[in-house]
Amino acid sequence: MSAIPVWSVDPRTGEQREQAAVEATDASVDAAVRAAHAARGALTDRAVRSAFLRTAADLLDAARDELVPLADAETALGAARLNGELTRTCYQLRCFADSVDEGAFLDIIISHPDATATPPVPDLRRLKVPLGVVAVYSASNFPFAFSVAGGDTASALAAGCPVVVKAHPDHPATSEATVAVLHRAAAQHGLPEGVAALVHGFDAGLALVRHPLVAAAGFTGSVRGGRALFDAAAARPTPIPFHGELGSLNPVLVTGAAATERAEEIGAGLAGSMTMGVGQFCVKPGLVLVPAGASGDGLLKSLTQSLADVAPGVLLDHRMRDNFIAGVAERAELPDVETPVTPGPGDAHSVATGVLTLPASRLTDPDGTAHDLLLEECFGPVTVVVRYEDVTEAEAVLDRLPGNLTATLHISSEEAESGSAAGLLARLTPLAGRVLVNAWPTGVAVAPAQHHGGPYPATTSTSTSVGLTAAERWLRPVAYQNTPEALLPPELREDNPLGLPRVVDGRREG
Amino acid sequence: MSAIPVWSVDPRTGEQREQAAVEATDASVDAAVRAAHAARGALTDRAVRSAFLRTAADLLDAARDELVPLADAETALGAARLNGELTRTCYQLRCFADSVDEGAFLDIIISHPDATATPPVPDLRRLKVPLGVVAVYSASNFPFAFSVAGGDTASALAAGCPVVVKAHPDHPATSEATVAVLHRAAAQHGLPEGVAALVHGFDAGLALVRHPLVAAAGFTGSVRGGRALFDAAAARPTPIPFHGELGSLNPVLVTGAAATERAEEIGAGLAGSMTMGVGQFCVKPGLVLVPAGASGDGLLKSLTQSLADVAPGVLLDHRMRDNFIAGVAERAELPDVETPVTPGPGDAHSVATGVLTLPASRLTDPDGTAHDLLLEECFGPVTVVVRYEDVTEAEAVLDRLPGNLTATLHISSEEAESGSAAGLLARLTPLAGRVLVNAWPTGVAVAPAQHHGGPYPATTSTSTSVGLTAAERWLRPVAYQNTPEALLPPELREDNPLGLPRVVDGRREG
Repeated sequence: MSAIPVWSVDPRTGEQREQAAVEATDASVDAAVRAAHAARGALTDRAVRSAFLRTAADLLDAARDELVPLADAETALGAARLNGELTRTCYQLRCFADSVDEGAFLDIIISHPDATATPPVPDLRRLKVPLGVVAVYSASNFPFAFSVAGGDTASALAAGCPVVVKAHPDHPATSEATVAVLHRAAAQHGLPEGVAALVHGFDAGLALVRHPLVAAAGFTGSVRGGRALFDAAAARPTPIPFHGELGSLNPVLVTGAAATERAEEIGAGLAGSMTMGVGQFCVKPGLVLVPAGASGDGLLKSLTQSLADVAPGVLLDHRMRDNFIAGVAERAELPDVETPVTPGPGDAHSVATGVLTLPASRLTDPDGTAHDLLLEECFGPVTVVVRYEDVTEAEAVLDRLPGNLTATLHISSEEAESGSAAGLLARLTPLAGRVLVNAWPTGVAVAPAQHHGGPYPATTSTSTSVGLTAAERWLRPVAYQNTPEALLPPELREDNPLGLPRVVDGRREG
Repeated sequence: MSAIPVWSVDPRTGEQREQAAVEATDASVDAAVRAAHAARGALTDRAVRSAFLRTAADLLDAARDELVPLADAETALGAARLNGELTRTCYQLRCFADSVDEGAFLDIIISHPDATATPPVPDLRRLKVPLGVVAVYSASNFPFAFSVAGGDTASALAAGCPVVVKAHPDHPATSEATVAVLHRAAAQHGLPEGVAALVHGFDAGLALVRHPLVAAAGFTGSVRGGRALFDAAAARPTPIPFHGELGSLNPVLVTGAAATERAEEIGAGLAGSMTMGVGQFCVKPGLVLVPAGASGDGLLKSLTQSLADVAPGVLLDHRMRDNFIAGVAERAELPDVETPVTPGPGDAHSVATGVLTLPASRLTDPDGTAHDLLLEECFGPVTVVVRYEDVTEAEAVLDRLPGNLTATLHISSEEAESGSAAGLLARLTPLAGRVLVNAWPTGVAVAPAQHHGGPYPATTSTSTSVGLTAAERWLRPVAYQNTPEALLPPELREDNPLGLPRVVDGRREG
């Protein structure tokens, strides 16, 4: 049987650019996983890991003139956005390198013996160790930051886990170019190529999550694809952790006072956030609760005016374009749904941005479920504006929402100290992993305090895929009991020769 | 339809003692979960939570004279062991109370704005919040420490999560008496009974893990039961975290030098550990690699002599007795398996302790899988002694083992500084969550550095069910972005009014 080609396609024309790779067979997936498994030992040394991550960042930066045009040709995301994304990707790799050197992620806890306890406490020394080979499923919408050298890969390598990345079919050539950079960086530190492998193809993705030597998986993508892989991970003879980011509506609640005070600003801000990256951000505000009446009308007017200048945009691939056009059409046909700006096809390769509006009562009607479609993410440049009569009705809509990555509250300056706003914030918190006030969810900062995750289907676990705590997904604790000093890993020796932060008998060191 | 009675049974006689409860119907499971869900707000205040946990410990201590005889009548574990277990249970509740007051489990991280980053970093403040209602599945073998008021319950309440406990059918009356104590403790602090509910029955257990308002589950029990519940948790429309402790062989490797130096001590220690609690500990050493030849013979002789004085013991229930008798018989019939001490039936209600031995070659034979049965846990007072010819053969057996809670190495005093022992420790580490040297795994200390978990099937997640980090199973992070000071939870306010430990811009406070 001959190899199945993987084509790089230009979404601006729908035409095949070049053959970028071939689909991985079961045998080649197996070979990649075995090579990764064999490379685990090479990642044991933290100093080597951090140096490798820094070199990878340097070489990605140096390859910018090759990588950005390539990614633009495959994704149509534009050079400005892609340059920013590559900068973010390199920054992320360097942040993880710093955290590897610091070592707090090892979560070292030492308990000295206590014979008076029931049962007696022996000498116990705990640290976290890498889980093993991590399968990484790249996202379509971030060809750098959530792809071959993105957050999942960076955090897994930081944790000491080799990765086998399943390339996203929307940017196979960019993926190949990126893994080549990772291999050059690995070679500079004497690391085998197996520390970061790349495979292509849908079947390869399934084979990967089922491989006995794969110890965990990270995924960014759709609810449908992510759930299928989550189910496969859970159904294995030996289930593995599956950290998937699947889908999110990212609700926004605008109070009446906020709409009165800042209708124009909020409308324009929403327009900017929902169209960023042609609406293809996982944190795109997809459902916005706006008061009925004049203040809300003003906000809607500002939104529609801001969108008037937005040219049709090219989505990441034509399947997404088809889904977007069909999805917005199906939603627009629902009773009481209006389209002050009509989303749909642009030219033969692009889509037009749009806004759907409806009264909140349609979403709170216990007898009607047709409008529940509006509570599902629609990937692309569209948002749903829900007009509510009063706070009780707005809260009733919130009660119907699934889990989200983000939830946003827009309040007036007076409300910044009000109990009612505090109450609304408390209502939003159970819905999401990140809660914002008077801001927009797009632009997920790489920072220690970041949390990019949320109740299902936002993520399939309680972990984050952005921020330094992302590394904890690929680690498990081991406690050494009664172990002679000379046999202990140096991280756990009594005199702390590596100067690591740790908690000893409840007291924090370093 | 009339209620299905739940009987308390005396395992020493097989007779029904009394009706302890009735099985929960779907409606009563639903009512318990809804009451727990409604009680979430009552657990928001950390000071109330820690006071409640301490009162629960005090009242359990005070009810000792009622609880211990009751548990003994249902489990036959004996007053001495049960008194120790109750002490441990109260200690555990108090440790979690202390950790609630300290607040490190909130994992607070604050990142101040940084406009120079790509993308810019806004004000981000992260803490962990409770997941919601936790389903707790009690274990048979620890009627206090891994049951109604055990580690899962204590850690969930510490995290701020109400619990609905599925009682183990082996001690329903003890479970009822324990939950009554928890309700008295709750009442003292004005908390509703819904913070800790109890349900009985197999069907109730399944209904519980499937209930939409249940947010996570903790389980201690068999591979079969735990896997069925894990699968149900993963198959939900909204999957939930399932932290199950399922089964473990707890391998022990005795080096030739150790057997030469301490044959008698190791044999006697093994006898004590494998018979503790009539072999019904999840960390019972169930597979022991002992060198072939004279030194190993001496160890085996010490083991068999130590077991000569062990009287038949009563297992937790008659189904377990049947399974033990059938399980050891099936294993003893395998080719080359010998029984220097024959396990099997004692009197009509008890079982006799035993030892199975076989040459390691039977477990490394690529053509024979019949002996793989010996690589599965056999619950009760039996251990498998595997005689190996050389270290390579011992390591080949280790390579065949599933995941474990513990792995133990016995070495000589000279080996405590040897490279070969360090190599063996590195071979054992991937197999388990706790690695011991010259000690026995039974007696799981409650300590900050403890880790009670391990690769599947030891546990279904990378978390622990013992030790203070157990609370992290019931929490998820939330990051607040750009939130006015007055609207922030007090834990996240700039001046740290609650004096909590936190990391601010990479610097540790408190």
